[in-house]
Amino acid sequence: MSETKTKVGIVGATGYTGVELLRLLAHHPQVSVAAITSRQEAGKHIADYFPSLRGVYDLTFQAPDDAQLDQCDVVFFATPNGVAMKEAPALLAQGIKVIDLSADYRIDDITTWQHYYKMEHASEEWVAKAVYGLSEWKHADIAQAQLIANPGCYPTCVGLPLLALLQANALNSSSHIIADCKSGVSGAGRKAEIGTLFSEAGDNFKAYGVSGHRHLPEIRQTIAAFNPDIAKKFTFVPHLTPLIRGMHATIYVELNEGIDALQVLQEAYQDSLFVDVMPNGSLPETRSVRGANICRITAYRAPETENNQWIILSVIDNLVKGAAGQAVQNMNIMLGLPENTALNCMPLLP
Amino acid sequence: MSETKTKVGIVGATGYTGVELLRLLAHHPQVSVAAITSRQEAGKHIADYFPSLRGVYDLTFQAPDDAQLDQCDVVFFATPNGVAMKEAPALLAQGIKVIDLSADYRIDDITTWQHYYKMEHASEEWVAKAVYGLSEWKHADIAQAQLIANPGCYPTCVGLPLLALLQANALNSSSHIIADCKSGVSGAGRKAEIGTLFSEAGDNFKAYGVSGHRHLPEIRQTIAAFNPDIAKKFTFVPHLTPLIRGMHATIYVELNEGIDALQVLQEAYQDSLFVDVMPNGSLPETRSVRGANICRITAYRAPETENNQWIILSVIDNLVKGAAGQAVQNMNIMLGLPENTALNCMPLLP
Amino acid sequence: MSETKTKVGIVGATGYTGVELLRLLAHHPQVSVAAITSRQEAGKHIADYFPSLRGVYDLTFQAPDDAQLDQCDVVFFATPNGVAMKEAPALLAQGIKVIDLSADYRIDDITTWQHYYKMEHASEEWVAKAVYGLSEWKHADIAQAQLIANPGCYPTCVGLPLLALLQANALNSSSHIIADCKSGVSGAGRKAEIGTLFSEAGDNFKAYGVSGHRHLPEIRQTIAAFNPDIAKKFTFVPHLTPLIRGMHATIYVELNEGIDALQVLQEAYQDSLFVDVMPNGSLPETRSVRGANICRITAYRAPETENNQWIILSVIDNLVKGAAGQAVQNMNIMLGLPENTALNCMPLLP
Amino acid sequence: MSETKTKVGIVGATGYTGVELLRLLAHHPQVSVAAITSRQEAGKHIADYFPSLRGVYDLTFQAPDDAQLDQCDVVFFATPNGVAMKEAPALLAQGIKVIDLSADYRIDDITTWQHYYKMEHASEEWVAKAVYGLSEWKHADIAQAQLIANPGCYPTCVGLPLLALLQANALNSSSHIIADCKSGVSGAGRKAEIGTLFSEAGDNFKAYGVSGHRHLPEIRQTIAAFNPDIAKKFTFVPHLTPLIRGMHATIYVELNEGIDALQVLQEAYQDSLFVDVMPNGSLPETRSVRGANICRITAYRAPETENNQWIILSVIDNLVKGAAGQAVQNMNIMLGLPENTALNCMPLLP
Repeated sequence: MSETKTKVGIVGATGYTGVELLRLLAHHPQVSVAAITSRQEAGKHIADYFPSLRGVYDLTFQAPDDAQLDQCDVVFFATPNGVAMKEAPALLAQGIKVIDLSADYRIDDITTWQHYYKMEHASEEWVAKAVYGLSEWKHADIAQAQLIANPGCYPTCVGLPLLALLQANALNSSSHIIADCKSGVSGAGRKAEIGTLFSEAGDNFKAYGVSGHRHLPEIRQTIAAFNPDIAKKFTFVPHLTPLIRGMHATIYVELNEGIDALQVLQEAYQDSLFVDVMPNGSLPETRSVRGANICRITAYRAPETENNQWIILSVIDNLVKGAAGQAVQNMNIMLGLPENTALNCMPLLP
Repeated sequence: MSETKTKVGIVGATGYTGVELLRLLAHHPQVSVAAITSRQEAGKHIADYFPSLRGVYDLTFQAPDDAQLDQCDVVFFATPNGVAMKEAPALLAQGIKVIDLSADYRIDDITTWQHYYKMEHASEEWVAKAVYGLSEWKHADIAQAQLIANPGCYPTCVGLPLLALLQANALNSSSHIIADCKSGVSGAGRKAEIGTLFSEAGDNFKAYGVSGHRHLPEIRQTIAAFNPDIAKKFTFVPHLTPLIRGMHATIYVELNEGIDALQVLQEAYQDSLFVDVMPNGSLPETRSVRGANICRITAYRAPETENNQWIILSVIDNLVKGAAGQAVQNMNIMLGLPENTALNCMPLLP
Repeated sequence: MSETKTKVGIVGATGYTGVELLRLLAHHPQVSVAAITSRQEAGKHIADYFPSLRGVYDLTFQAPDDAQLDQCDVVFFATPNGVAMKEAPALLAQGIKVIDLSADYRIDDITTWQHYYKMEHASEEWVAKAVYGLSEWKHADIAQAQLIANPGCYPTCVGLPLLALLQANALNSSSHIIADCKSGVSGAGRKAEIGTLFSEAGDNFKAYGVSGHRHLPEIRQTIAAFNPDIAKKFTFVPHLTPLIRGMHATIYVELNEGIDALQVLQEAYQDSLFVDVMPNGSLPETRSVRGANICRITAYRAPETENNQWIILSVIDNLVKGAAGQAVQNMNIMLGLPENTALNCMPLLP
Repeated sequence: MSETKTKVGIVGATGYTGVELLRLLAHHPQVSVAAITSRQEAGKHIADYFPSLRGVYDLTFQAPDDAQLDQCDVVFFATPNGVAMKEAPALLAQGIKVIDLSADYRIDDITTWQHYYKMEHASEEWVAKAVYGLSEWKHADIAQAQLIANPGCYPTCVGLPLLALLQANALNSSSHIIADCKSGVSGAGRKAEIGTLFSEAGDNFKAYGVSGHRHLPEIRQTIAAFNPDIAKKFTFVPHLTPLIRGMHATIYVELNEGIDALQVLQEAYQDSLFVDVMPNGSLPETRSVRGANICRITAYRAPETENNQWIILSVIDNLVKGAAGQAVQNMNIMLGLPENTALNCMPLLP
């Protein structure tokens, strides 16, 4: 472990985004993971906890207080909502860079956040300073940021295509946007709950959060930054689908006359490393990005309709571009490294 | 096997709708399966082909010509598209009742059918006489029919909630209807194809048929019977999801001011044996109808939108209410039997 | 609900064996479910808990103390280990018949039970009176019993073929028996645990309990009743496989010279309603019994070996013949009803 | 594409081992893929065939005759059995190195091969020259070889632990070895067949090839090289389990008195890059090696038995260490490169 490497800490490394950060950082040439914390698993060697990491890391989980996170250059919070807002400020005060994978710093409006997350916010002042880390759209801000609010998986999968259309002024502002989204079960996290047991979520499909999922205000805020009126005409329904990783958004929009959604998307992302706009007739499938920091998108003119109705298809791996991968991408930007360092892992197909 | 039982034949009994008909009819008290046909498996005992039916049926597959289908009272066609239109007319001419689970007789407009199914239609005269067998909406016609065009799975899952709203004049006719549908893989049939292999369709999610699925004109025709203008503002996107059985439709509609979708649905189906409108806040899941001839539906007012936007959720087992179960339901109606005879099988959960 | 029907109570009806009992009993013509208990869900209507049962039962969970179980004729315990041994004796004392689906009364030797189940036994006297309910082998005893220790899933799947071989004196007593077993995840029950989450148990295969699973002494006891020496030469390894229901045992035995395992099995079960010995060359698959109270078995002479080595394949649905189905079968025997009453449900394939 | 890189060709690159080779070689620093062939897909760009490889390769499938494979330094055959034996000899005659992932060159005894593979062998002379590429055991031979017979997945998963025990003379030669193996469905290849459809192989478990799988003589040959007598007392039963990738072998052996299997395994593989012997009490699971070129092994003394009976657990990813990964490992050895070049990909968990 070279002295000159950037020292990284991971708070809450026992969850799925935590182990995914560890997978991605394992061969990062400029970074070394110096500390992993877990209150519950303190003292346990990582090889005994995640056998997939045997022989790769020689690390032991530490209680947060023992972990000397203040010796790190960058700290990731891969914690449940409500932890980072309490624990990050002390690190930030010491000049440490923080990337929060939870939702604590994502919503500018504190009242909205408190309504959706059912708790008091503990560090409002840092909400204002945090940069929302949708990497492709906030590159310059991220490069300067000390605190990144890493986006949610749904907001990433929906936001990437939608922002390109919004920027191009393509959306018919009098019509309604529908985002019908489907997520793999790992999106629910590594928590002991009946609803995500194999025997409950397997061979089963259902909607959830229909009356107001927490990612609704997050996506709405993203849209509103471009067009507050359109943000009010937005419906989002998430569904749970029996796959481990993967997220698919099917977005229904009416575009202004003459606009071709696919062309807008291709122009927006023609130089992108991580957003792949697929040609006419393609069908992005979740496995084509399994394990990779890629968003694949395409668009179809809705068949046999008179108005300029379009169907946008967008897929990501919810744990990579929807969480840990985008977090590493943001870290690379913050550190001035090539954006794709350690992010060239190929999709696992089949 | 009592002499007085209705004799049933099944053409193409080696597919998933065929074996499902056999499962459902196994304990039907008024019906006996007299003949099963398969060109390819002729001579093979059913117990060697479907071990799930061992000890239940003593039947051998016969070539269609050897099967003496003209000795049957009712013949089901569980065949690929294009077979029933050639083989059913001879049986119909002898007064035999026919229930076609394929698409041959579903579309009134022959040009549209030929466009979508890429073949010449072989018995146009019977298209006009066929009754579209959406049981809950065509009960009287079905009771009198000789030929039933058994509906497709998507048209059943989407049509059942939509027809209730159309009948109540609930839909805002200036807005667009979106039906985002997800199907289990058994909907693709029991065909040797790479796309539906376990290693392709497993742990994977994708849209398909986006530029115009065959069930689009079928649903459009169903809507148009109530309101041709609304039928033109309809978008349908099917998706393949890694479950064996099950279909989920998420339907987005704008309703006329003051109308409550859930109330409309509850009134429409309050006496229904097979359509279960679930209370406010429910989340219909596909496994809640696995193996059962039930459609479960509920509705949500879209959160935080100004116009009267609604989200309708509808689930069926694509092989039961979406195919073989509805076929048996239609047979019961045609024979004047209680509609739920042999259809009380409970959902298998988990 | 007819006055003359047998009144049934189910203690612990929120688990998988509980809901399976409810599915099977829904259309039982001589039985009515009068009470379901759950400490945690008391007051909740069953339709809100198990949507698959909507419209079928009008029952509400009750706290055990409120449930008037003493008004029932038969009480099923579908509870975690350690509950029935405390709560059943009071019911038994009032003459009520009890069928315990847990392990409390399965092991004759209290020391062994306490070693494997890590608790004190609370009603040793009833262990001696309980009948081990492997229906096919204890028919006469079950008919007279007041308390049934319903067998475990592995012991049923392994025991059914093995007992036939033991009874025929077929096993070479100097050689070792291997039972390599694979179970669907529902066998672990409906408990909030990380290990059986979809994202942990899905797309994954592993052995567990290798150093001594609780079903080892249960199977050993079953073997020992025929031949204590052979019971000492028995190895059992269970594995977790990503299917919801289903259990497959692959059993390796050396038989005495000249003995044909398949012939022994066929003779033993030729008149059996629920054990299906499949012909030479068959490959029993778990889905062929999905949802049904059937054990399918076949046997192969091990290829290219000199000694009389055999491979026995046995499949059940762990929740039906391995739990709730066998419990209903035992209830039918106890009540003098036809053994297959309410147990003719067909396997769900696909 | 540097001139100094080794040029690689892949024959039959449309299958699962083909796409896996492409995934692994994508970032190999000393190798460039120069040609991929497919008779059926000739002319199709790889990005249109495998979307997971979009942006990574700019290659088009060519008919084998057009592909100028003779310009390559190394050619992989990822073809069905029977192709390499016909097409490889011409390349071998020109001095090109060949790694055959099919079974054509694995079995020394031509009669046995012809019996199991049901065809005439077309290049017997090369069978004698081929090196069986179980990398950990044939390192020196592989380094000198021109033709590698890359081992089957089962023979790798079973052979790695078994060879360590054989080398240590640990096996009791009078007792029988059982290898009960479970494979993910991708092991069956990417072929349009009904038996491996999602709706057939999903939520299902079964044995297959019980009367004599093709990998039986391959494993037997591997054992016989150490001890021909023990090779005759070997039983192998493969099973199909509903996971995409992954293979688990459970091996039952009786060891000579006093021998500890785990210790033998640990000593044999203490310096191994790709064989990980896990400590006492571990439970190797297939996902811990998903996508990685690793075999994880552990061993348990069978509980409550008198003789020195052991249970060995071994897992690999059937497409990586069981096929394409081991092929790349062998190529690295042949080229004198570090054995793990391009093989450090981390397991994907979850």
